[in-house]
Amino acid sequence: MLYHVRMDVRLPAEMDPSSRADLIAREKAYSQRLQREGKWPHLWRIAGEYANFSVFDVADHDELHALLSGLPLFPYLALEVTPLATHPSKVVS
Amino acid sequence: MLYHVRMDVRLPAEMDPSSRADLIAREKAYSQRLQREGKWPHLWRIAGEYANFSVFDVADHDELHALLSGLPLFPYLALEVTPLATHPSKVVS
Amino acid sequence: MLYHVRMDVRLPAEMDPSSRADLIAREKAYSQRLQREGKWPHLWRIAGEYANFSVFDVADHDELHALLSGLPLFPYLALEVTPLATHPSKVVS
Amino acid sequence: MLYHVRMDVRLPAEMDPSSRADLIAREKAYSQRLQREGKWPHLWRIAGEYANFSVFDVADHDELHALLSGLPLFPYLALEVTPLATHPSKVVS
Amino acid sequence: MLYHVRMDVRLPAEMDPSSRADLIAREKAYSQRLQREGKWPHLWRIAGEYANFSVFDVADHDELHALLSGLPLFPYLALEVTPLATHPSKVVS
Amino acid sequence: MLYHVRMDVRLPAEMDPSSRADLIAREKAYSQRLQREGKWPHLWRIAGEYANFSVFDVADHDELHALLSGLPLFPYLALEVTPLATHPSKVVS
Amino acid sequence: MLYHVRMDVRLPAEMDPSSRADLIAREKAYSQRLQREGKWPHLWRIAGEYANFSVFDVADHDELHALLSGLPLFPYLALEVTPLATHPSKVVS
Amino acid sequence: MLYHVRMDVRLPAEMDPSSRADLIAREKAYSQRLQREGKWPHLWRIAGEYANFSVFDVADHDELHALLSGLPLFPYLALEVTPLATHPSKVVS
Amino acid sequence: MLYHVRMDVRLPAEMDPSSRADLIAREKAYSQRLQREGKWPHLWRIAGEYANFSVFDVADHDELHALLSGLPLFPYLALEVTPLATHPSKVVS
Amino acid sequence: MLYHVRMDVRLPAEMDPSSRADLIAREKAYSQRLQREGKWPHLWRIAGEYANFSVFDVADHDELHALLSGLPLFPYLALEVTPLATHPSKVVS
Repeated sequence: MLYHVRMDVRLPAEMDPSSRADLIAREKAYSQRLQREGKWPHLWRIAGEYANFSVFDVADHDELHALLSGLPLFPYLALEVTPLATHPSKVVS
Repeated sequence: MLYHVRMDVRLPAEMDPSSRADLIAREKAYSQRLQREGKWPHLWRIAGEYANFSVFDVADHDELHALLSGLPLFPYLALEVTPLATHPSKVVS
Repeated sequence: MLYHVRMDVRLPAEMDPSSRADLIAREKAYSQRLQREGKWPHLWRIAGEYANFSVFDVADHDELHALLSGLPLFPYLALEVTPLATHPSKVVS
Repeated sequence: MLYHVRMDVRLPAEMDPSSRADLIAREKAYSQRLQREGKWPHLWRIAGEYANFSVFDVADHDELHALLSGLPLFPYLALEVTPLATHPSKVVS
Repeated sequence: MLYHVRMDVRLPAEMDPSSRADLIAREKAYSQRLQREGKWPHLWRIAGEYANFSVFDVADHDELHALLSGLPLFPYLALEVTPLATHPSKVVS
Repeated sequence: MLYHVRMDVRLPAEMDPSSRADLIAREKAYSQRLQREGKWPHLWRIAGEYANFSVFDVADHDELHALLSGLPLFPYLALEVTPLATHPSKVVS
Repeated sequence: MLYHVRMDVRLPAEMDPSSRADLIAREKAYSQRLQREGKWPHLWRIAGEYANFSVFDVADHDELHALLSGLPLFPYLALEVTPLATHPSKVVS
Repeated sequence: MLYHVRMDVRLPAEMDPSSRADLIAREKAYSQRLQREGKWPHLWRIAGEYANFSVFDVADHDELHALLSGLPLFPYLALEVTPLATHPSKVVS
Repeated sequence: MLYHVRMDVRLPAEMDPSSRADLIAREKAYSQRLQREGKWPHLWRIAGEYANFSVFDVADHDELHALLSGLPLFPYLALEVTPLATHPSKVVS
Repeated sequence: MLYHVRMDVRLPAEMDPSSRADLIAREKAYSQRLQREGKWPHLWRIAGEYANFSVFDVADHDELHALLSGLPLFPYLALEVTPLATHPSKVVS
C-alpha cells in the first residue's frame, strides 16, 4: 500500500558538525537500503527547503510506522502521512 | 522538470448531474491524454477526500501553468504547486 | 487496518426539509449496515457540533475510499483521515 | 463518560537517554494501569508521528484532568480534549 | 458539570426580516428557559461581534449535545465546546 | 467591566523544581487575593491542559493590564483578552 | 476608554448597485456623526483592501457594542476588537 | 515607492461567459495602461493558480489604494500589500 | 506617510534582570525621542499582552525600516507593518 | 526560469556579535556575486522585518536548490518558493 509523506528536517543550527555529518550519513544509508528494497519508491527534495516529499510502499500502517520511527533523523523530523488510494482516472500502463 | 501538485475539487453539491458527469468525463479524458504523453507521470487519490496528489513532468513553469489552467475542472480546483529538485539520497536505478 | 476519520457535516441551512430528512435516513441506513459488517467499529458524536469521530476497519486504502465516497452525505462532508498503528503501550486483552 | 484525546509528545531531541528511557517506562506503566482499570479503553499510535489518539472513560471532567495531568510525560505533551456524546446512528450491540 | 461554549452566529445578510425576527425571538425564549432552569448559568456578548461566550451546567455530554443541537439558531452556529474542571487556586466561597 | 481571559501556561519542563513550586505558590496567593477582592470572579481549569478560562471584573483596561502583567507567571503566559458586553437574552436574576 | 477595531467589509460582488450606494452613504453618515461626537477618533483605510483600522473612545464595552452593531454595514463586517491600555513609554503631550 | 502585492482572483465559476470576458478584457487594458505609465513595473503569474505577484511603483499609500481599488476585478480580488524598502545587499547597477 | 505597526515583545523569561532593565530603558528613551520628533504619533499597550499597536509618520518605507530595525528591542520583536491610506469617510477637522 | 522566494531570517538574539557579523558579511558577498551573475535579479527588504522578497532566474529547480541551500544564512532561514509563469497581461517592452 502507498503512503505519501512530507518530511521537514529541523536540525538545530548550532549542532556539532561531526555529529551532524554522522547523522546525515546514517540517514542516507538507511534511506538507500529502503529504496533498494522497494519500500521507498519516490523521494524528491522540495526546492529551497530542507524537506522532502516521499512515497512509501509497505504492507500496512504498522510497517510504515516502524520504518519512519526508525529513521536516524526521526527526533528532528516533522512528518505528515497521507494514505494514497487508486485514482479512477489513472492510466494503467 | 518535476512539479508536485495537490488538487482539491470543490464542485457545488447541488450541481446539475448531467453537467457534472460531462465535466468529469472531460477531465478524465484530458488527464489521460497528458498521462499518455508522459507529462503527468503520477496521480494518486487522497484517501477519503475529493482530492489528489500529482506529479507533472514538463519543460518549464509556463507549460505547467498552461496544462493546469486548461483542466476542465480548473474553475473548481484549489491548486498548490511545489517544484521538486533531485534528492541527494535518491538511488539512481 | 484501522483508520481514524473526523467528519464535519456542512448541510445548507436552507435545504428542503424532506430532501434533508431523506438524505439523513439514507446516511443512517448506510452507516448501520457498515457497523453491522464490522467495518465501522466506532462512531461518536462530537458534543455540540454536527460532526463525528469514527474508526474504520477495512482491508486497505482503496476500500476505505470506496466506503467514504459512497456515504450519502459525502458531497456535504469535510473528511480528515488518519491511519492508526499499534501503540507499544497498548494492553492486549 | 467518554473523552477523545489527541496527545503529541514533544521530548527534546538532546534529552539524556537514561532519563528518557526511565520517563517512557513510567509512562507505559501508568498507561497500562489505567487501561486495566477500564479508564483508558482505546489507545492508537498515529502512524508516522510521536502522537496518539486515545479515548478515556471517566466519571467527570475533574477525574479526566487528574488522570491527564498525572501522566509522567505531561510536561512534554500537547493535549487536545473533545467530549464525546452518543451518536444517533450508532448500532447498539 | 460545566462546559464553556463559544457560539458564533452566521445568519445570511439577505435573510427575510420577519423570518429572522421570528428565529431570534425563539432563540431568546429557548435561552431564557434554560437560564431559569439553571442549565445556562453564564451568557456574555463578545463586544463587537455577533457571538457569545457561555457556560452550561448539565449532567453529561449527551445532555449538553441535546441542548445545543436544539437551539433554534443551531443550523447557523459555529460552536466550540471546552470541558471545565475545578481550578486548584479557586477560592471556595 | 467584565473581561474574558484565556491563559496558557508555558513553564519550561526542565525548570528547577523548587523555583517552580515557589512561583506557583506565589501565583496562587496572588490569584486568591484578587478573587477575594471580587476582581477575578470566575476561574476554571481547561480539562487536560495547563490553561484556564477566567473572567475579570475591573474598572477599566488599565487596571486589567496592571493585574495581568503583575501575575507571577506573566513571563510564562500566553494571554488572550476579550471584552464582554451584556447579552440581550441574559436573564437578570 | 479606547478600543482598537479592525473592520473587513464583505459586500457581495453582485449586490444591486443602488442598494449598495445607499448602504455606503448611510454608513458614511453614521461614521461621520460618531467622529464629530468624538467617539470614533481614528479611522484609516488599510491600503489595497476594503478594510479599515479604527480607534473608538467610549464609556464601556456595552456602548462599544451598541455603536458597532448599529453600523449600517454590520451584517457584512468581520470585526476584531482589542482593548487599548496606556503604554508606559507614551509621552504625555 | 515600491509595494509588493499578491492578488488572488475569486471569480464565481458560474459567471456569465460574456460578462466574464468583458471584465477580463477591461482588467487587461487597465493593467497595461499602468504598466506603460511605469506604475506597475512587475507582473508575474503564480504557476498553477489564478493569482499574481506584482510590484507597484507609486508616490504614496493613497495613490496605491486608488490604483488597486480601481481595478475592474477589485470586487473579486483578495489583495495583500507589503511595503518594500531598499535591501542593504542590493547591487546598484 | 502613516504606517500601522503591531509589535509583540518576545523577551526570554530567564533573561538577566539588569540586562533586561537596561534594554527596556534604552527602548523607552528611543521611543520617546521619536515621539517628540513627531515620527511615532500613536502608541498603545494591547491590554493583557506584552505588545503594542503603534502608528508611525515618516517620509517613506526606507525611513520606516531604519527606525524599526534600530529599536533596541528589535531582535526580540515580531513586527507586522500595514500602510495606511486616507479613509473616504474620515472627517477632516 | 523565474522563482519568487520569501526569506525570513531567524538569527538567535544572543548570537556572538563577531560570528554574526562574519555570517552577514559572507551572506552579502554571496548574494552580490549571484546578483552580478544575473541569477538574483530582484532583492527587496520587507519593511520592518528581517526578511526579503527575491526573484531568482536560474536554469531549473536543481540550480535553484543549490543556490538557496548554499546561502551562508541557510540554517537560519525560513524559505518559501513560488514558480513564476508569464502573465497574459504583461506588456512586453
